[in-house]
Amino acid sequence: MRVAFIGLGSMGLAMADNLRRAGHALSVYNRTPGRAETLSGARVAATPGEAAADAEAVVSMLADDTAVETTVFGSEGVLESLPPGAVHVGMTTMSHGLTGRLARAHTDRGQAFVAAPVFGRPKAARAAKLWIVAAGPGAAVDRCRPLFEAMGQGVEYLGEDPAQAAVLKIAGNFLLASMIETLGEAYALVRRHDLEPARFLEIVNGRLFRSPVYENYGKIIAEARFDPPGFKLRHGLKDTRLALEAGDAVHTPLPIASLLRDHYLEALARGWGELDWSAVAAVSATAAGLEGPTPPAPPPAR
Amino acid sequence: MRVAFIGLGSMGLAMADNLRRAGHALSVYNRTPGRAETLSGARVAATPGEAAADAEAVVSMLADDTAVETTVFGSEGVLESLPPGAVHVGMTTMSHGLTGRLARAHTDRGQAFVAAPVFGRPKAARAAKLWIVAAGPGAAVDRCRPLFEAMGQGVEYLGEDPAQAAVLKIAGNFLLASMIETLGEAYALVRRHDLEPARFLEIVNGRLFRSPVYENYGKIIAEARFDPPGFKLRHGLKDTRLALEAGDAVHTPLPIASLLRDHYLEALARGWGELDWSAVAAVSATAAGLEGPTPPAPPPAR
Amino acid sequence: MRVAFIGLGSMGLAMADNLRRAGHALSVYNRTPGRAETLSGARVAATPGEAAADAEAVVSMLADDTAVETTVFGSEGVLESLPPGAVHVGMTTMSHGLTGRLARAHTDRGQAFVAAPVFGRPKAARAAKLWIVAAGPGAAVDRCRPLFEAMGQGVEYLGEDPAQAAVLKIAGNFLLASMIETLGEAYALVRRHDLEPARFLEIVNGRLFRSPVYENYGKIIAEARFDPPGFKLRHGLKDTRLALEAGDAVHTPLPIASLLRDHYLEALARGWGELDWSAVAAVSATAAGLEGPTPPAPPPAR
Amino acid sequence: MRVAFIGLGSMGLAMADNLRRAGHALSVYNRTPGRAETLSGARVAATPGEAAADAEAVVSMLADDTAVETTVFGSEGVLESLPPGAVHVGMTTMSHGLTGRLARAHTDRGQAFVAAPVFGRPKAARAAKLWIVAAGPGAAVDRCRPLFEAMGQGVEYLGEDPAQAAVLKIAGNFLLASMIETLGEAYALVRRHDLEPARFLEIVNGRLFRSPVYENYGKIIAEARFDPPGFKLRHGLKDTRLALEAGDAVHTPLPIASLLRDHYLEALARGWGELDWSAVAAVSATAAGLEGPTPPAPPPAR
Repeated sequence: MRVAFIGLGSMGLAMADNLRRAGHALSVYNRTPGRAETLSGARVAATPGEAAADAEAVVSMLADDTAVETTVFGSEGVLESLPPGAVHVGMTTMSHGLTGRLARAHTDRGQAFVAAPVFGRPKAARAAKLWIVAAGPGAAVDRCRPLFEAMGQGVEYLGEDPAQAAVLKIAGNFLLASMIETLGEAYALVRRHDLEPARFLEIVNGRLFRSPVYENYGKIIAEARFDPPGFKLRHGLKDTRLALEAGDAVHTPLPIASLLRDHYLEALARGWGELDWSAVAAVSATAAGLEGPTPPAPPPAR
Repeated sequence: MRVAFIGLGSMGLAMADNLRRAGHALSVYNRTPGRAETLSGARVAATPGEAAADAEAVVSMLADDTAVETTVFGSEGVLESLPPGAVHVGMTTMSHGLTGRLARAHTDRGQAFVAAPVFGRPKAARAAKLWIVAAGPGAAVDRCRPLFEAMGQGVEYLGEDPAQAAVLKIAGNFLLASMIETLGEAYALVRRHDLEPARFLEIVNGRLFRSPVYENYGKIIAEARFDPPGFKLRHGLKDTRLALEAGDAVHTPLPIASLLRDHYLEALARGWGELDWSAVAAVSATAAGLEGPTPPAPPPAR
Repeated sequence: MRVAFIGLGSMGLAMADNLRRAGHALSVYNRTPGRAETLSGARVAATPGEAAADAEAVVSMLADDTAVETTVFGSEGVLESLPPGAVHVGMTTMSHGLTGRLARAHTDRGQAFVAAPVFGRPKAARAAKLWIVAAGPGAAVDRCRPLFEAMGQGVEYLGEDPAQAAVLKIAGNFLLASMIETLGEAYALVRRHDLEPARFLEIVNGRLFRSPVYENYGKIIAEARFDPPGFKLRHGLKDTRLALEAGDAVHTPLPIASLLRDHYLEALARGWGELDWSAVAAVSATAAGLEGPTPPAPPPAR
Repeated sequence: MRVAFIGLGSMGLAMADNLRRAGHALSVYNRTPGRAETLSGARVAATPGEAAADAEAVVSMLADDTAVETTVFGSEGVLESLPPGAVHVGMTTMSHGLTGRLARAHTDRGQAFVAAPVFGRPKAARAAKLWIVAAGPGAAVDRCRPLFEAMGQGVEYLGEDPAQAAVLKIAGNFLLASMIETLGEAYALVRRHDLEPARFLEIVNGRLFRSPVYENYGKIIAEARFDPPGFKLRHGLKDTRLALEAGDAVHTPLPIASLLRDHYLEALARGWGELDWSAVAAVSATAAGLEGPTPPAPPPAR
């Protein structure tokens, strides 16, 4: 397929590369130039609109709602140039509200919109091991299956309404974030009682919960390996805002998400925004008077 | 071994029965009489002290700190009659403070105290599939291994200090409780967005988190099967109080435990204290304006 | 002065009327027509831009950020038609972010922007007893003093930066909201202990805290007089969102604001959004198993 | 009257001195000796029981429930030696549960128990400006009026049930604590937006809320005058625990009290337990990345 890929961050670049290897013809766009060098054979476009101009499918994998809005609705954006009949596959974790607006805007122009957020960190993206949750018009989703197969280990179809994929992704990330937060609190408790966190985890998760999530993050936190980040803490804040927004829209309080947001803000205020989001555990540790890991100095503002 | 078993609730009775089947000679005590009928061959004692009088080991499995205090320190309690050299195996989920007091009191009398709280619900107890976390004097723990093997599928030894087993159990239950609470909030969110909770769980846990905890409780909550309870909500409140107490003792805030406590109290105020503790999800559901399961009327006060 | 008044809600109408009585020449605009009937002598404009076209000052008193954005930046909005040298006095409680954008936009066109949010309910507006907090260019504020004197009992000048008035108003409302929330929780506690809330308030506030805020809201809550509302609960939610946003922008967690937001959402989910914002106390009451006031059915959607 | 005064802390000593000046005959007891030196004419007893032995009234003003329990129920305690017909006036802020137990125990012995907690800091105690809330048998309260008049500026009678005075005091302190917490959060917000807290307070409280509580604590916090403490932070934690306990007993969640407890624990973990309880504001300040006041080193453990 002729695929336009927009957004070459650590996730997007790996995903685009997997599309290229699978034989798809790529045109790519990234706000900061120079990211496409490793994508041999890809055509580098100067604007999102140029990338999308003759594509059968546009795949976007961006940082947040604002980036998606600019890319799609901005001047020289995707919306104006994407040919009728083509499909926009939005893989960014974005708000359910923006997801709905994208669906309506593309539909109005005879284009299709498929929301297809992913679960997985950059390592999974490189290994084509992402889990993809797709929602949108069935025919459009079917046309994109070869793309999904090149990028992930599985795709779940959620039905016609793209917003439902957004909600599932947001609620899933909320579960994940709350597991990390709870680990942080539990670790502070056991450390203050002189019980080794690694031993605690080995018993409680190894014998009982048996979740790879606790396994992975439990080790990262116990060893304070927050840098380099797999997923940045300030992105964790962004995703928590999405959960709160999705709750607000339907009058659903999410008190644990409120607490997560407060702890992420504290982490940002302490300069930990560029660390892995599991560094939120250091908020609980320092609140308990533990020294906690000394997070490396944040990189210069960007 | 000659074993005194104190506390024949739904957990204790199953555990005692497994000890009996393994060939141990039982004397038993339960505050409410008549529970020992199915334990053929067991000697029924009129007081904890009588049960313990010639035991090599006393196993206690009771409701809470108060019950343990009465059983051990009360008149005709275990402490006075247990022979020197014998061991008290405390399997109740109890405070780390009481655990410390028991250790000191037994040691002062030449007896040994082993804290050995368990993970698992009554079904696991009946199947001898409990996970046991033991801490206390190594020799005493070793002598009790045949008992642990009769009741559980594994025992983890945490070292000489019994209070550490209490802390591990308390922190483990806190993780468990917070997973249930988070599921409740996430379900409220997806339900209000017309996404089926069962489908949400299938994808998020089935593909990603792969935890039997989410699997089990996710189904119970989705189907509102809160009665009969596997573990009563008011006991969940009790365990959360233990977590807060353990945090308070070492100046460790546990904001998620604070939130759990508030939600359990609300559940009790609504008459749901005798339901399964996963009925706390109904607090989140009703806060979101969802009708939630109608919990059956609570049984008469006991 | 020639004054354009935009927004004739229960606050705005009273404020405009006081300007008229003080002899100012009014042109008015309200999205829903027919509100200006009692303002004899006022010229009714068809658009905000028409109202502002020959004004020396535009006063806007609207529902929220969205209404302000439309009114100012929309086509036929204030920004395009307000003469250079004239001043826009924004009295709406709005975000500090929008306040900053308004200041820049007006300045760019040679107009002045003064943020002048008010404290007080409709009764105070009618009696010209509002407290006004003004920030913006000193000369522009001075020109508007006759207007402030006609509408309020006092004006405090906060300096050149309009955003500071927004922050003060937002933080002040946050204090107010948290006093109401705390009263709600305290009342639930004393009611469940059979202590009369009115008696509690009489002693604690009458003797100690001596705040008219506790006095007023304490009575409203004790008597469950939530309808008609002085300030609607859904507007309380709006203001709490502004506090959270203002905190988020500078990485400042406000855990009590998070809790307020969750309780307002629950109140909205229960259909109490059109009641007085002190009806948030009913969230605490029902969580404690108290029947709480039965809020009247909400009016038909608008 | 012949009055036994138990507990000569900074509050108790001032109160006892006012009783002495009013002409009452004092026998006093304090756990740490040497505190009674300034009370010329007072008889110093070696035990609470000795102090109470021929008293018409015992007044106790102690640190917490544990101190009250020891003083009353301990060997050589008040309960055994107080003559029948005499009254015990409990002025300590204590749990409603212990209040109930004291009432029953004294009544069983033909003695009377009056709960009479006070509002006010040491300065108010010295000036005989305390507010006293009394509950208990009407005749006993009437007999104690001369004592109340010597110590306070007013006494409110709450009825026959002493536990109601405990609940009122606990709920009142909860309101107070939540006002301080909210100030701390609001100050963090305005400071991060470069708005002077003192100016904020001057407008918001000076014009609107007009509460002496905000006035006093607002200044203390703005100037970081946390040492010497008027009321120690660790006592604030104690009182918050009482509120949570009183809520727990009647299944009433108090989410703001939960949050207060978490913040006090964090303050204790940071070594601020001996500072004034308004130092809890520094928890909010540091969470926002503000340096906050450097609290002086805590005094050596006592």
